[in-house]
Amino acid sequence: MSQEPSVFTKIINREIPASIRFEDDEFIVIDDIHPKAPIHMLIIPKQTYRTLEEADIHDEHFHAKILLLARKMARDLGISDNYKLVMNVGLDIQEVHHIHLHLLGGWEKTKVPKDI
Amino acid sequence: MSQEPSVFTKIINREIPASIRFEDDEFIVIDDIHPKAPIHMLIIPKQTYRTLEEADIHDEHFHAKILLLARKMARDLGISDNYKLVMNVGLDIQEVHHIHLHLLGGWEKTKVPKDI
Repeated sequence: MSQEPSVFTKIINREIPASIRFEDDEFIVIDDIHPKAPIHMLIIPKQTYRTLEEADIHDEHFHAKILLLARKMARDLGISDNYKLVMNVGLDIQEVHHIHLHLLGGWEKTKVPKDI
Repeated sequence: MSQEPSVFTKIINREIPASIRFEDDEFIVIDDIHPKAPIHMLIIPKQTYRTLEEADIHDEHFHAKILLLARKMARDLGISDNYKLVMNVGLDIQEVHHIHLHLLGGWEKTKVPKDI
């Protein structure tokens, strides 16, 4: 595709800086620069799917890894007691046209949000 | 476990009514009774994990199917252009202690929410 590389692709390529929490061949995890919770990370596949809808529906590993990596990050950061996962899917609803999952957590016990 | 069956288990067992959108051996999809969007469904595994954290981390199929079934439902309901997936994970943050994924969508084009 001819579109401009996303801000996340530029982070993956080390063209712009970010607070990188995890990286492997398939994914990168960074801090959100506008955090909505004490801990707010973005789980980002390196494949340049603009949205979840562009991922191959037969690729179970890819879909599983999104959630499994979120679980790993929550555990590593010590927030696995209570956390929230959010994925916006679509070119209008997404701010960045590069698939990503929000992982939010780290609230004090009395400040854990309820519901959605 | 000796705890009381969740409201979702009671729906799966047809002990209480719900608007069922989909069902197979592994999952059931129902309308949320307090919708936060024009379409608001819950993707619910039949396995009685209280939270995502109780699912086997080696079970890629299970984790993949949560997202793949959300994609199927969005497509079947004609809302795959823009939708939002939310999963709360934890006994404080979850209203119901039975793993579930929220699928929200169906907004008019001018009313698609931004960000999280």
